[in-house]
Amino acid sequence: MGGRRLPRRGRPRTPGAPVMSDAVYRDPTAPVDARVRDLLSRMTLREKVGQLNQRMYGWDAYRRTPDGGFELTEALRAETDRFEGLGALYGLQRADAWSGVDHGNGPGAEDGAALADLVQRHVVERSRLGIPTLFVEEVPHGLMALDGTVLPVNLAIGATWDPELYERAAAHAAAELRARGGHVALVSALDIARDPRWGRTEECFGEDPHLAGRLTQALVRGMQGACPDGLFAADKAPVVLKHFAGQGATVGGRNSAESELGWRELHEIHLPAARAGVRAGAAAVMAAYNEVDGMPCSGNRALLTGLLREEWGFDGLVMADGLAVDRLARITGDKVSAGALALDSGVDLSLWDEGFTHLQEAVERGLVSEGTLDAAVARVLRLKFRLGLFERQHPTASRPAGGAELSKEVARAAVTLLRNDGVLPVGADVSRIAVLGPQAATTAHQSGDYTAPQRPGTGSSVLDALRGLAPGLDIRHEPGCSLTGDDLSGIPAAIAQAAASDLAVLVLGGSSARTPGTEFDANGAALKAVSEMTCGEGVDLAGLRLGGAQYALLDAVVATGTPTAVVLVQGRPHLVPDTAPALLSAWYPGPWGGEAIAEVLLGLTEPAGRLPVSVPRSAAQLPVYYNHKDTEYGGYVDESAEPRYSFGHGLSYTSFAYGEPRLTGRTVEVDITNTGRRYGRSVVQVYLRRLITRTWPRTLELCAFEGVGLAPGERRTVTLPLEGVSGTVEIRVAASAREALTAKGHSLTAPDDTPL
Amino acid sequence: MGGRRLPRRGRPRTPGAPVMSDAVYRDPTAPVDARVRDLLSRMTLREKVGQLNQRMYGWDAYRRTPDGGFELTEALRAETDRFEGLGALYGLQRADAWSGVDHGNGPGAEDGAALADLVQRHVVERSRLGIPTLFVEEVPHGLMALDGTVLPVNLAIGATWDPELYERAAAHAAAELRARGGHVALVSALDIARDPRWGRTEECFGEDPHLAGRLTQALVRGMQGACPDGLFAADKAPVVLKHFAGQGATVGGRNSAESELGWRELHEIHLPAARAGVRAGAAAVMAAYNEVDGMPCSGNRALLTGLLREEWGFDGLVMADGLAVDRLARITGDKVSAGALALDSGVDLSLWDEGFTHLQEAVERGLVSEGTLDAAVARVLRLKFRLGLFERQHPTASRPAGGAELSKEVARAAVTLLRNDGVLPVGADVSRIAVLGPQAATTAHQSGDYTAPQRPGTGSSVLDALRGLAPGLDIRHEPGCSLTGDDLSGIPAAIAQAAASDLAVLVLGGSSARTPGTEFDANGAALKAVSEMTCGEGVDLAGLRLGGAQYALLDAVVATGTPTAVVLVQGRPHLVPDTAPALLSAWYPGPWGGEAIAEVLLGLTEPAGRLPVSVPRSAAQLPVYYNHKDTEYGGYVDESAEPRYSFGHGLSYTSFAYGEPRLTGRTVEVDITNTGRRYGRSVVQVYLRRLITRTWPRTLELCAFEGVGLAPGERRTVTLPLEGVSGTVEIRVAASAREALTAKGHSLTAPDDTPL
Repeated sequence: MGGRRLPRRGRPRTPGAPVMSDAVYRDPTAPVDARVRDLLSRMTLREKVGQLNQRMYGWDAYRRTPDGGFELTEALRAETDRFEGLGALYGLQRADAWSGVDHGNGPGAEDGAALADLVQRHVVERSRLGIPTLFVEEVPHGLMALDGTVLPVNLAIGATWDPELYERAAAHAAAELRARGGHVALVSALDIARDPRWGRTEECFGEDPHLAGRLTQALVRGMQGACPDGLFAADKAPVVLKHFAGQGATVGGRNSAESELGWRELHEIHLPAARAGVRAGAAAVMAAYNEVDGMPCSGNRALLTGLLREEWGFDGLVMADGLAVDRLARITGDKVSAGALALDSGVDLSLWDEGFTHLQEAVERGLVSEGTLDAAVARVLRLKFRLGLFERQHPTASRPAGGAELSKEVARAAVTLLRNDGVLPVGADVSRIAVLGPQAATTAHQSGDYTAPQRPGTGSSVLDALRGLAPGLDIRHEPGCSLTGDDLSGIPAAIAQAAASDLAVLVLGGSSARTPGTEFDANGAALKAVSEMTCGEGVDLAGLRLGGAQYALLDAVVATGTPTAVVLVQGRPHLVPDTAPALLSAWYPGPWGGEAIAEVLLGLTEPAGRLPVSVPRSAAQLPVYYNHKDTEYGGYVDESAEPRYSFGHGLSYTSFAYGEPRLTGRTVEVDITNTGRRYGRSVVQVYLRRLITRTWPRTLELCAFEGVGLAPGERRTVTLPLEGVSGTVEIRVAASAREALTAKGHSLTAPDDTPL
Repeated sequence: MGGRRLPRRGRPRTPGAPVMSDAVYRDPTAPVDARVRDLLSRMTLREKVGQLNQRMYGWDAYRRTPDGGFELTEALRAETDRFEGLGALYGLQRADAWSGVDHGNGPGAEDGAALADLVQRHVVERSRLGIPTLFVEEVPHGLMALDGTVLPVNLAIGATWDPELYERAAAHAAAELRARGGHVALVSALDIARDPRWGRTEECFGEDPHLAGRLTQALVRGMQGACPDGLFAADKAPVVLKHFAGQGATVGGRNSAESELGWRELHEIHLPAARAGVRAGAAAVMAAYNEVDGMPCSGNRALLTGLLREEWGFDGLVMADGLAVDRLARITGDKVSAGALALDSGVDLSLWDEGFTHLQEAVERGLVSEGTLDAAVARVLRLKFRLGLFERQHPTASRPAGGAELSKEVARAAVTLLRNDGVLPVGADVSRIAVLGPQAATTAHQSGDYTAPQRPGTGSSVLDALRGLAPGLDIRHEPGCSLTGDDLSGIPAAIAQAAASDLAVLVLGGSSARTPGTEFDANGAALKAVSEMTCGEGVDLAGLRLGGAQYALLDAVVATGTPTAVVLVQGRPHLVPDTAPALLSAWYPGPWGGEAIAEVLLGLTEPAGRLPVSVPRSAAQLPVYYNHKDTEYGGYVDESAEPRYSFGHGLSYTSFAYGEPRLTGRTVEVDITNTGRRYGRSVVQVYLRRLITRTWPRTLELCAFEGVGLAPGERRTVTLPLEGVSGTVEIRVAASAREALTAKGHSLTAPDDTPL
């Protein structure tokens, strides 16, 4: 932004005075900072407070008219009147089970932009200074709105180990958002999966800070683009990175419970993704629900101001999580002081809270300064100027094409083959396949949480995809059981199909699908899982066990003696016994995931996914992650402390050989050869092991990785940067964390710039 | 100590010069500090380094002679020659499976003092300045030496909720230690039980910082006494409080693994017991193995110096845990710098480490200053002067009587009745009892870890005690199964006995008994549990399940329809299904625990114990403690987040009614009435709930308690102090944490002096 060339203050204004048409803030050629200062100087305290509020739910702002159009509600008019404007509006495009709006009634690709236009025109009209609102939407894995292209969940993104692919997917999602009038994308990216009991594990890129950081960077680049002069292109969207910070460390995997972790653990594990996102230019972060060592993030000045703004130099927006400001009343005693605490700590924009509506009173009572409030307002306004909303309030981007193909491409890249005793890919000797299990013939549970309902016929199930791709095979189906409930009556039919087939494909898993009838609190947290949900926000699973009669079904099918490949459709690692010869996890692969799975089963696509999380042996051995401290723990008397499957693990249909790594300055080079007879993609993983250090080191830390696709017999030299590596360390190149434990180390000493 | 009245420095000395007989340090009438300064000024660097070393194992210092006496080993001579003296000697009285010395060969009550005398004479003779050594012994629950009186483990002490009783028991243990020539008592007290998977849970007073703090205070008072002029009485012993700090918070309940917790959590939960111990005048603390947020305690200057010495004003000794200094070489690169780091951080006295033997080199290389070393030496010397070792090197106290009765008194007070559906106490209609289970007829597993082997015939099993106390009953026994292993062959006989009886008493549990043949590393951590150990140091249990066929036995016995009382002999809460009508936990009650249990079963003693830890429903729901943060977590979809039995819970054979609590200044008064027909002891528990606070509050915090014994119909008013209560809080009086959740609150506002 060019604002620094101008004098720091504009002409003094009288707040509330009439606006001249030549006002600096109206001049699109003026630098953003100058426009912000000018506009701010004209605003009344009441108008300023309005800019910090995102109180209303978007779906309450309109109604369908009998002719299929939209009309605005009294609720919207009351809200815009209250502060003479509207800071931001959450979920205008949302029409799903969560919002309580029937999706037949909500906007779709064809009229989302018109609805946004209608609301924006109203807001600008009601604002004395003509300040537009921000339309904020959930875009956790694709735009969460009818006709939004659903992408695989973050955990699947993590399994791809492919930031370039994710950058393309993120760009697509941003373009979809902007095409229908949305502005700001809420995206889970910062939570690190440290406890698979947590229902939001699916929203994490995995357990590792480096992997999460690389993907967060890709997300920001993809969604926001380059932002020349600080301005967002018409098809780019500012990202709100969720959640800042430490939400993956809540005790017991309990949603929004306390994180007891200390400052160093926070820095080493839970902050690197945020740091990477801030470095990449993320426009905003969302303060997390949880506390960190006693202080809730929304009221945590050390975190939001001391670390984020002052130490990291972040100049973007901090948004509160839903009703998180009001929650602070638990410690401050009332919502007015809760709002003041949040604002003073560094929150700029609230979400649904009452506390921020009382900020005028808070300023007048001296609980927070008007200067602090002005700084927050400036950040909101800056984002509006950066989006060009004062110039082009109406969407100008058109809906991008190719969403389904892109989603499927990601789903393919995420399929992770964990075990394969010669069963896969389906061989020429197989003529009849039994496709079994509660996830086999439906797409209803493929997409994870934060997914808008899909139009009928979107995507395909594993069963349909197999039939479509292999018309010459005799493919039969029995569900065997459902995802939850204890009905065993379908098992005999599944056994019969398995016994009569050459191969059984058993599609098991969990569900984060929110169906109408599920009860939620105002945060979207499930009060009661009346659906088949076993995962998702507010749906934590203590035992990590598959629901329903799925284990009984697995045992029965395996007992037939028919070779069985188990496919898991899931948002977290579940416990699955080692009884079937093949096991793969597709995570929640999205609507087109059935095709991706079928392609991998048939060998039309190579399994390319690598585990972004360790798979535990039991819930009793938690926590399980590869990058624990190097205490050489020997294990429990009744259980190993090691995972069942290691972080980074994933099989291929071909084989690879790694040469001796070569350290050259701050890079590592390694030759990799495809020694098998099929094309395949290996993910070269570089781990470091700290030798001399100021604090207790981890056994291993991932510090670089790159995926390499190789034809049979092909050999390539991969050069990986060792960024951020410092001190006296050992570098180990391997194909998983477990392999890195015994891989040969290569010593390296680099200047120590470890923080703390 | 009167040192402050003297000039701060004595005459300058030439280190190594001959000592005049009128030296200040030899003058018993001179103040301790003056004697320390004088002695220090005469010492060479080599002699000083010697005082900081506790390298040798006491059991390697001597051999039995053919006539039954002792002779010193070359190892001891070499060690005393090395530094011309001996700082301290660990485990001289130890003769047990841990030490590798057959107990028939070790000292007992009759000759322990003679052995100590022999060694001390040698040390003083070899020291140019005549500096005696410190004999340091494990006294975790009674003196860990042959003929030491074994007390119930700390978890049982926690269950008594009776600091006065514990103070008496601690005084007894100190007197036993001193009577046989020992000086310093190593006692676990500071670890807070936050994860029952941890094998050292038995060494904790429980999950609560207030309860642990009160008991730690009692321990210090009981063992150390009043120390007029800083001097220990002949039957009192300086305590080394173990472990400082946060060892109960290691991830996954893994022994000496990392604690990720932050500074506030450390302060609120893991430090109060240490703070209480320091306030009570504890002579020493032991630095814990674990790291706290990245920094191992032995190398943690913020903890050992910044907090402990500078903020708390602790002027005692800091001892390292076994080989913990050498472990620091993992981050410093070698043992010399490891020793320097530990000394510089605040460790005064090592335990077995090589690192501290190189401190002369460390000083000469400038890794640590001689001033820092001098301060550490001064602390070691001060303790020797405070013990009067320069005057009376030979034990003068005689062995105290009444150990067994005192141990049994504690065991009685610890028996915790968790469930009782009318089965207990044994009624007049019972004439035949089947006493079943692997713990029923043996005392071998009653005493927990850190217990010296007992002479044959010490104590009694539940079976023997029942037979002794109720000779009129027909009491039969079958073990049914063993503690570990999968042999089911004994179950039919147990079923037969149960079916033929009016009552089954099923004694189940775990074992921390170290048998010869168990493999240990140098820290005493089990490398391989070749015994029946399922608990104890280094023996962590992921699943919290009873070993062997104990569940099968329980199911089979209950299925007979005979009313069954399950008795648990255990060092941690285990998972036990709710199938039997009565359940009680005796923890590890010590050798005389069988009698305590039998008395409670028969109604000769009232069950008085209250849970010092929450009993979980499963390992999958961990962590489970009552004083979690107030996040109103709704539970997992497959499991409650609440414990099976609440902290503070414990039934009585009578009933109590609590009146309305009355707040009077900084105390709370409550009337309590025994409304039943038997004598009983209720533990009045006062919890606070913070309302307005600077950090996120816990749901409840125990802030006061008192046990009250009442005759039938008796009513008494109990006045409890509300010490350390600050801010705007609500006070709730209840008989358990779970009851406190719904108890009526009484508001109180007191000046806020919360640290941090």
